[in-house]
Amino acid sequence: MYFETIQQMKKMLGQFDHWFEKASHHAKEKSFDPNVYLGLRLAPDQFAFARQVQITCDTAMLTASRLTGKEAPKNEDHEGTLGELSARVHATVAYLDTFTADDFAGAATRTVTQPRWEGKYMTGADYFHQHAVPNFFFHLSQAYAILRHNGVGLGKRDYLGALDLRAP
Amino acid sequence: MYFETIQQMKKMLGQFDHWFEKASHHAKEKSFDPNVYLGLRLAPDQFAFARQVQITCDTAMLTASRLTGKEAPKNEDHEGTLGELSARVHATVAYLDTFTADDFAGAATRTVTQPRWEGKYMTGADYFHQHAVPNFFFHLSQAYAILRHNGVGLGKRDYLGALDLRAP
Repeated sequence: MYFETIQQMKKMLGQFDHWFEKASHHAKEKSFDPNVYLGLRLAPDQFAFARQVQITCDTAMLTASRLTGKEAPKNEDHEGTLGELSARVHATVAYLDTFTADDFAGAATRTVTQPRWEGKYMTGADYFHQHAVPNFFFHLSQAYAILRHNGVGLGKRDYLGALDLRAP
Repeated sequence: MYFETIQQMKKMLGQFDHWFEKASHHAKEKSFDPNVYLGLRLAPDQFAFARQVQITCDTAMLTASRLTGKEAPKNEDHEGTLGELSARVHATVAYLDTFTADDFAGAATRTVTQPRWEGKYMTGADYFHQHAVPNFFFHLSQAYAILRHNGVGLGKRDYLGALDLRAP
């Protein structure tokens, strides 16, 4: 199910282009620079839109790399336009595309750590449920909330994307 | 892993009381009625805070009931205070407590539908990945964003709760 979750993360990252397009359209309608969105935030001490998108990407990337023991690329976080954010999203999806279901064998019992945990670690299963998945959706949803609060006409369908509904 | 995700949803629902407490504290500091929060929203055509909390609860409840074929209780959505929202959250956690890992046997291939899908259905696995999990975290995160935008001092730790970090 780790692999299936990575597939879902890819699908949801794919929605970003649609959000960026709606944001650009709204900016055009109101005659402001669409890249203004990158610096908007819901509270002065919360990350701005660009950072929320970058962290959403990194969380998906690190979920895959940490659960499989593969090295993740380092990103510079230099994105300054919606187009550059889109390229970051595409690069993330391309990275996630390199993983197969087999790569996640043994992920549940793998040791996961990061510098801020000061030598402590989590099991892969705990990391996945308690940290990776909640963080991915958190930053994705904060990015959504920032656009929504600033006039972009996003709805639930823009968030979820198409559902695999089947005819009876 | 369905059962493990329900356990994580329970944990995150458990964070709501902490958020409500911080919201009440902020309201007291600024001398306004803490129940004002229930009607706040990030955009005029988005659900208000109370509804975001109610949907978060219902999404967790329906994830468990639909994946196991058990009947879910109907809720009236009459909550008008933070205390009543807290009771709704507690009732949801108590309902989730009635499930065991065995209840989720066969969940992946179970048929899941709802009236708005007009006769179409999803497999349990698709419903879980594409609909249930993204929606749960979406509404939880919108509730968080509404409080955060309105001055409540929440941080990532208030969202994630305690992590099962292990000593080396």
